[in-house]
Amino acid sequence: MANGPSGEGVIERLIRVLETFDPDHTAQTASQISRRAALPASTGHRVVAELTAAGLLERDDEGRARVGMRLWELATRGSLALGLRQAALPAMERVQSAVRQHTQLAVLEHDTALFLERLSHPEAGANITRIAGRLPLHASSSGLVLLAHAPREVIERVLASPLPAVAPDTITDSAVLRRRLSEIRRLGYAVSPGSVETVSTGIAVPILDSGTVVAALSVILPRGSRDETRTLVLLRDAAADIATTLAQARLFR
Amino acid sequence: MANGPSGEGVIERLIRVLETFDPDHTAQTASQISRRAALPASTGHRVVAELTAAGLLERDDEGRARVGMRLWELATRGSLALGLRQAALPAMERVQSAVRQHTQLAVLEHDTALFLERLSHPEAGANITRIAGRLPLHASSSGLVLLAHAPREVIERVLASPLPAVAPDTITDSAVLRRRLSEIRRLGYAVSPGSVETVSTGIAVPILDSGTVVAALSVILPRGSRDETRTLVLLRDAAADIATTLAQARLFR
Repeated sequence: MANGPSGEGVIERLIRVLETFDPDHTAQTASQISRRAALPASTGHRVVAELTAAGLLERDDEGRARVGMRLWELATRGSLALGLRQAALPAMERVQSAVRQHTQLAVLEHDTALFLERLSHPEAGANITRIAGRLPLHASSSGLVLLAHAPREVIERVLASPLPAVAPDTITDSAVLRRRLSEIRRLGYAVSPGSVETVSTGIAVPILDSGTVVAALSVILPRGSRDETRTLVLLRDAAADIATTLAQARLFR
Repeated sequence: MANGPSGEGVIERLIRVLETFDPDHTAQTASQISRRAALPASTGHRVVAELTAAGLLERDDEGRARVGMRLWELATRGSLALGLRQAALPAMERVQSAVRQHTQLAVLEHDTALFLERLSHPEAGANITRIAGRLPLHASSSGLVLLAHAPREVIERVLASPLPAVAPDTITDSAVLRRRLSEIRRLGYAVSPGSVETVSTGIAVPILDSGTVVAALSVILPRGSRDETRTLVLLRDAAADIATTLAQARLFR
């Protein structure tokens, strides 16, 4: 925990403190943060006080710490997450208003699918995805599309690692997964019934920029829905529109 | 620039580095970052290397640094910005699809209006607002609504500070601004023609949670539009819906 002259300790503790915040923990006392970050109480209190003084955390009326608007601003303003989301949002809204189900945008990040955007519908079915949340690559339809088009070393690393069952129909066998990825590359989409939630089917397509897959666009349908084919057509049209927007924005170049 | 044992130096440099990123500077070399952050080149290169090693910055194919998806995730996942935006988005989409103009959500942050969300329309008029961007409180319609309902010390601080003209019709006189804020509190909305851009009129209403104004919802119309009254009605309905959602979510308690 020592803070060396290069300061790695500070950045690491910042990350450990920020990792304790999620939609179920938006306001926490310094003691709660210390415990969840596995930091000694004195260290935790000091880091929280420093981050609050710098404006990266804020205190609410009860003295609990929150992720500061200033940190959100700094992390969002120039980010690829925002650029990609802005490029995708109009097409996502068209898909969502046509199918009236959850519509999502995900990228490959540290061997998981990180969700940048999610449009929900009040009448839509179950879906555990959250914005800035993650799902395993081998389970979610978005993850399967991202993994199928990932660099070879990522594919081999995931195939060599444990493939835990998220739901009864998650692919947990690496040979099956390898064939599935090959099939997804050939078809150009992934349809995954019950791989994340028993009651849902994920349908995902890749979003390309200059020939490289940079994201996955997906819709979560109630399992057994008759809208699968129609949804797939809508998703492919949307992905093509987003690719055009990205090419115009030159976001990734 | 020394890095004290409490590590304030590291956090300050992190902030200075992140401040150099914006939608016009999404990918920068360490030298560009050092220059824009006013850091010595050796310090800048070291901080960029440390942040990259920690995953808070990423390198693109050309070796330039970008704000990392990991940082965006950490700053977004448990943030009030996300919670407020999620509570507001369905109502914002209804407003935007009805008026087909820019629809925006802003909060008061460090004596400015910080924009958390912006839905645009391809046919909509001019608008300089950006997500995670800021506008002065005394100029934008959102800022005027937020300032009108701000704590007294914030109002007095802004009234005592310079009020630069952003556009020809920005209020730059503190006595005029004081009367305007009183009027906005009485009316419950702000209509600001030409205060940010000559060609646009901003219309903003407060969003309440438990009797406290927590955000402003606004639409930017082409100046002279006949839709002002209709837009105002839509905004007030939307703000009431968002207040109900916030009360259910207990986001601010």
